[in-house]
Amino acid sequence: MDFVLRGDICYSERPERLTTVPGGYVVCADGVCAGVFDTLPERYAALPLIDESGRLVMPGLCDLHVHAPQFAYRGLGMDLELLEWLATRAFPEESKYADLDYAGLAYDLFVDAMRKSATTRLSCFATLHVPATLLLTEKLEKSGLRGFVGKVSMDRNAPEFLCECSAERGAKDCEKWLREASDRFIQFRPAVTPRFIPACSDELCRQLANLAAEYGAPVQSHLSENLEEIKLVRTLCPDAQSYADAYDRLGMLGPRTVMAHAVYPEDEEIELLKTRGVTVAHCPASNMNIRSGIAPVRKLLRAGVRVGLGSDVAGGQTIDLFRAVTDAVQASKLYWRLVDKNDLALTLSEAFYMATKGGGAFFGRVGSFEPGYEMDLIVLDDAGLPHPQALSVEERAQRAMYLSGECAVTRKFVAGQPIEL
Amino acid sequence: MDFVLRGDICYSERPERLTTVPGGYVVCADGVCAGVFDTLPERYAALPLIDESGRLVMPGLCDLHVHAPQFAYRGLGMDLELLEWLATRAFPEESKYADLDYAGLAYDLFVDAMRKSATTRLSCFATLHVPATLLLTEKLEKSGLRGFVGKVSMDRNAPEFLCECSAERGAKDCEKWLREASDRFIQFRPAVTPRFIPACSDELCRQLANLAAEYGAPVQSHLSENLEEIKLVRTLCPDAQSYADAYDRLGMLGPRTVMAHAVYPEDEEIELLKTRGVTVAHCPASNMNIRSGIAPVRKLLRAGVRVGLGSDVAGGQTIDLFRAVTDAVQASKLYWRLVDKNDLALTLSEAFYMATKGGGAFFGRVGSFEPGYEMDLIVLDDAGLPHPQALSVEERAQRAMYLSGECAVTRKFVAGQPIEL
Repeated sequence: MDFVLRGDICYSERPERLTTVPGGYVVCADGVCAGVFDTLPERYAALPLIDESGRLVMPGLCDLHVHAPQFAYRGLGMDLELLEWLATRAFPEESKYADLDYAGLAYDLFVDAMRKSATTRLSCFATLHVPATLLLTEKLEKSGLRGFVGKVSMDRNAPEFLCECSAERGAKDCEKWLREASDRFIQFRPAVTPRFIPACSDELCRQLANLAAEYGAPVQSHLSENLEEIKLVRTLCPDAQSYADAYDRLGMLGPRTVMAHAVYPEDEEIELLKTRGVTVAHCPASNMNIRSGIAPVRKLLRAGVRVGLGSDVAGGQTIDLFRAVTDAVQASKLYWRLVDKNDLALTLSEAFYMATKGGGAFFGRVGSFEPGYEMDLIVLDDAGLPHPQALSVEERAQRAMYLSGECAVTRKFVAGQPIEL
Repeated sequence: MDFVLRGDICYSERPERLTTVPGGYVVCADGVCAGVFDTLPERYAALPLIDESGRLVMPGLCDLHVHAPQFAYRGLGMDLELLEWLATRAFPEESKYADLDYAGLAYDLFVDAMRKSATTRLSCFATLHVPATLLLTEKLEKSGLRGFVGKVSMDRNAPEFLCECSAERGAKDCEKWLREASDRFIQFRPAVTPRFIPACSDELCRQLANLAAEYGAPVQSHLSENLEEIKLVRTLCPDAQSYADAYDRLGMLGPRTVMAHAVYPEDEEIELLKTRGVTVAHCPASNMNIRSGIAPVRKLLRAGVRVGLGSDVAGGQTIDLFRAVTDAVQASKLYWRLVDKNDLALTLSEAFYMATKGGGAFFGRVGSFEPGYEMDLIVLDDAGLPHPQALSVEERAQRAMYLSGECAVTRKFVAGQPIEL
């Protein structure tokens, strides 16, 4: 379906500033953006016009890191720290996904919420269960959203009920997942998903890296999130120069790898992420909630590392990625104030860029309204945020991001296809 | 109106834990709580029953620090720091309140939002304009909420259009405000409101302190928010031992004083706040947004200082005080991680206490369901947060606080009076 959509348009071409076009036109042809215009060019006059005058029109947001099974317990147990939280909340809950009935119920809630959110693309973790992960992917595929899903792999340091016992078994299950998912799904593609080094043996990681290469699958995992975890990795991988190097030696880092967190990256680690073209999923809410700290995003950006945003539900409490945008700004202000005065705070524009074009790059030409970008679009009704003064489109966009809970997503397209809200 | 209300009750008696009563009864007699019961005592059986079974029932929240005129630009200009933000955003906007038409329009939006929120009590700043502040108070009085409003006083270091020129003029305007407001309003009482030391001469402060004593009015102001501001106070008050001492020498500190922020209190300052019985309004979102830092709440609590929460709109972007509750927890986790490992993070229960019984003490016996407390009550519909697993009332309350934007306040009483939502 080709169309023209009229509204108050706001998107990112580069991190430094928002591009806004009040009462502008965005044109979709063959699922791809043909451009944004002040006045509609004659050549598009025959296309159906969707009139969203007075509403905000933005690219869909890209959630680079979210745990689908954790959605069921978002906002719970937030007084705990990472390893304790994993043991008492995350792992017991994830074990329930051996039961397909429970998985269906819980994943319906997750997919339904994602569908109605401002997010159009996501890279998500499931659990280690192949059938439940296929069920999740089926539901996501039907939603119209796009992205990656990973069956989680773990073969050590996990409770028995969430462990694949051996590297061989883990690799075998992963291959089953990759094969079935590749066959059955088009919009959601399978991702190789080692939980993190502490839970994956070298042997499992090596086999997973081979499978990723063989199936052309992206890799997603966690990196340098928490000081205790980093210490553990140092013990488990005494030869590695850093946590990132441990992944690298096992063949896990490349331009199709997304690593969540990087809260405590060493200088060599940053260089390695840059060299390998890895994308970092910055998850500020999660880093606060489970007391990890604040990721040095400015340092990563300065070094040329690709950075996008993740909700990291349920370390983060909400899948609302606008919240991740403003959390990223707030966290970076505290980093500047409390940790390093050389690392200037992120601007809202930079954080919005990370949530759209920045993180979108992991999914292809996604996250902007520049010509050639896949037409991921959301319409935001900010009428619930009345104001006594005149506001520019940029100001309204700022406010909608800071108060996204008070705005409704009233329309959504992914790659030019309408999503039922 | 006396009544019984049935629902899933959650409130604070002490900071350490939430008290919950699933399917319990809270009884209101003469505007005051008669108690919470598992089964309804016979003696209340004749009272009208409001059945809110399945919904969460909590005390109303107490917002100790909010700028009513700044509501109009919440979420805007958040890339600036305090003094720059005051100069380019706060002061120009506040000057508009010389115009009663504009003030009426803007204050309608503020009061309307407050009325519908989870907040039942507030201590708020207006601007320096007496007529607009009376207008605001009239609107607040009609809303059914209760609390304090302050005409702001400023006689130095402010733009000419927002300055009272002399201490005499400032004191005179303040007295006019106190007299008229005391005469006209019952539920909202006037507060003496020096903006902060940098904007108030010693002479003005002394006269304001006298007026507060004469009219029995509380005092509200800002304290030790930002490092630049603190430096400025040191220059302006060379004899004072600290920022708090500067206020104290001018007669401003006492058990009816609420001071916002205290992000950088010195040890003597904490001792002084404790001795004088001052309440601190902790405003975590604002402290992040305008890059002030993180207030050492654990230190304040350990020293026995009274602490409540403030939204500090528009330093904070939202009047949703549940957000302040979870922001306080998140900020305290970062303080523990990045600043001082001796200061353990706040638990959600402690932060909720600050938003209810803790801050409520500034308004009287307010903020709990213990017998004798004024009946401030909200009903929260958390049906928008479905879950596949069984959750306790405490877990649902946790989730509702972390995801308050996804819950609706469906009923509200202040001192036993129903509020129209």
